[in-house]
Amino acid sequence: MKRVGFLLKVREKYIEEYKTHHQNVWEEMKSALVRHGWNNYSLFIRPDGLLFGYFEANESFSDSLTGMSKEQINTEWQELMSPYFEILEGSDPDQSIVELEEVFHLD
Amino acid sequence: MKRVGFLLKVREKYIEEYKTHHQNVWEEMKSALVRHGWNNYSLFIRPDGLLFGYFEANESFSDSLTGMSKEQINTEWQELMSPYFEILEGSDPDQSIVELEEVFHLD
Repeated sequence: MKRVGFLLKVREKYIEEYKTHHQNVWEEMKSALVRHGWNNYSLFIRPDGLLFGYFEANESFSDSLTGMSKEQINTEWQELMSPYFEILEGSDPDQSIVELEEVFHLD
Repeated sequence: MKRVGFLLKVREKYIEEYKTHHQNVWEEMKSALVRHGWNNYSLFIRPDGLLFGYFEANESFSDSLTGMSKEQINTEWQELMSPYFEILEGSDPDQSIVELEEVFHLD
């Protein structure tokens, strides 16, 4: 198991819409996440839209991302989410993620 | 149980020292954290020193902070850590923490 921390940035004007979508994540999307080891997965937001993600991957962040990248439902979800994020033109949110380094852990 | 996400900022020039301290957290400090419900506690750092914390509190972030504030070992630890953080003069790191809002969770 590998604990993963990552950051994204939601555009400030879309924060409320982003939150509403995340109260209603598609069941098929959640099943895909579970299949690819996004375990105990939480997202937290700062009032300006900085978004922090935490989950416990089976193997690694890149394995979990690669697994999702092959799921059609994830392609559709990322297309829906794409306008909400501050990202480079033409890339999707999964490619603008910043992985953080774990510096401490206590069980 | 309440999942907690929070942010702090380590001064860039002290990042390496901060990391070294966290490879050697005092056993007494870790026991105090466990006593006050800092369960499955991780810290992650961005290269510029932005620090993200995640843990699973028994009740709430404020309960876990209040519990620690009454522990002498925590006072000593916070005194040691205080120069490493970008904080207001005269306050200690625990008082400069930004709690984040959970917007999604998947078990």
